Amino acid sequence: MPVAFNELLRKQWEKQRFLCVGLDTDYAKLPKGIRQTSIADAIFEFNRLIIEATADFCGAYKPNIAFYEGYGLEGLDALIRTNRYLREHYPDIPIILDAKRADIGSTNQGYVKMVEDVFLAHGITVHPYLGREALLPFLERPHLGVIVLCHTSNPGASEFQDLAVAGGEPLYRKVAEAVYREWNTQGNCGLVLGATYPEQLSEVRKAAPDLPFLIPGVGAQGGDLEQTVKNGLDEKGAGIIINASRSIIYASSGDDFAEAARNEAKKMDRAIKAVVQRLS
Amino acid sequence: MPVAFNELLRKQWEKQRFLCVGLDTDYAKLPKGIRQTSIADAIFEFNRLIIEATADFCGAYKPNIAFYEGYGLEGLDALIRTNRYLREHYPDIPIILDAKRADIGSTNQGYVKMVEDVFLAHGITVHPYLGREALLPFLERPHLGVIVLCHTSNPGASEFQDLAVAGGEPLYRKVAEAVYREWNTQGNCGLVLGATYPEQLSEVRKAAPDLPFLIPGVGAQGGDLEQTVKNGLDEKGAGIIINASRSIIYASSGDDFAEAARNEAKKMDRAIKAVVQRLS
Repeated sequence: MPVAFNELLRKQWEKQRFLCVGLDTDYAKLPKGIRQTSIADAIFEFNRLIIEATADFCGAYKPNIAFYEGYGLEGLDALIRTNRYLREHYPDIPIILDAKRADIGSTNQGYVKMVEDVFLAHGITVHPYLGREALLPFLERPHLGVIVLCHTSNPGASEFQDLAVAGGEPLYRKVAEAVYREWNTQGNCGLVLGATYPEQLSEVRKAAPDLPFLIPGVGAQGGDLEQTVKNGLDEKGAGIIINASRSIIYASSGDDFAEAARNEAKKMDRAIKAVVQRLS
Repeated sequence: MPVAFNELLRKQWEKQRFLCVGLDTDYAKLPKGIRQTSIADAIFEFNRLIIEATADFCGAYKPNIAFYEGYGLEGLDALIRTNRYLREHYPDIPIILDAKRADIGSTNQGYVKMVEDVFLAHGITVHPYLGREALLPFLERPHLGVIVLCHTSNPGASEFQDLAVAGGEPLYRKVAEAVYREWNTQGNCGLVLGATYPEQLSEVRKAAPDLPFLIPGVGAQGGDLEQTVKNGLDEKGAGIIINASRSIIYASSGDDFAEAARNEAKKMDRAIKAVVQRLS
């Protein structure tokens, strides 16, 4: 039996770990010292040092595959090695592959194999546009975390996501309700909600009281941490995976990047916990 | 200057070529004879033989990357080799990478590098959910075809796509209008419309009179070819890329797969042309 994403997550929350470190590792942005080797080696080595430095404060890792795909087979090889390293050394920390996939029906089986067998991740982010029926190959795997884009963190997120659908309800809430009421039969679903839209986050928490929320947009994108924790927490004082990528992994552009990442992760972990404990 | 997707497409339409062969190549489904080598070699060899057999009748090739990602680096290597082969031997036939990607802002730059530099494709399919602003890294590249999912071919497509938004208009039409009126400033956009929803196809043609339509869902998925051509054609008697995948590449499961694919592609090409000529 594979380890279930939601089970790992629950244990992290019991330890009061809510921080997710986004491994958005772009080779072109790496410190010069680490770029002396091959692309694959450099990316993997950077990730390994970031992971070792931040694991004490980290409830999940989230590599965004776009950064790796841009470097072709070398980039993807680095991601495979990164996730293999995580599974071996930190088997209790869930890996979310931020791949934002979604195709129709059986085609998604290729993506299921990709996330599970190739990249050894515990969960994946997906687009909702094609509907539940299209996503069944993901949804029917109880151990696989299926984290559906609901209200994203980007400035232009509202173009379609905030459109009022029948009954005056915005589309993103319709998505949240569908996932909560109909898609989550295996208890493996979650939602992506950008910290840059605190009201929508709060609304969706009411609509989906106990779904895990993956929340990007604090840190470099400017979402307010206290507000985010307050609006995202579920009734049990958990339910949130707060992601920071650039603000942690690029905390320093020098050779002290790992130490700087550790300090930044520690700071965020403490800040999140402080709010959680105040509210509990 | 890179070759523009829409320029290649226009030239194919001038030659009355409307058929797109979907290279949905699943290693597990390949004829035994071809599976004697490595996974990468087998997939590439199968694709090469399919391409050679069908190029005479083909206006575009569309590999769906999900099938390749499922086999990890070997699968992706086969796709790189396939597209390199296409660019070398059939430089006039556009390659659409059916990747259904979409992330926020700068993250999409990784996907742009992926589609252009790694996989050498001319166009890519994308999800609309994150909005125009998120997709600018794709939209701002005039030579890159950006084909936006509008109404997909799957049975459950209606869950969100048919929701009535403000004014009573369905979401998919809102997407079509946004792409037509606001996203297409570089003249590089297209829409995906499933042949399995002929009415929606016809409606969207009215809303977006001269956007290229990528139309999957004839063949194995059962969309009616005549209706599809009739509803999809633009005023110039062009504008359609009609995709068939399984019905062509798996026309025979034996060693005569290439010949069977050629016959099937020829038949479809003729059937499409017959309707186009009757309507012109």
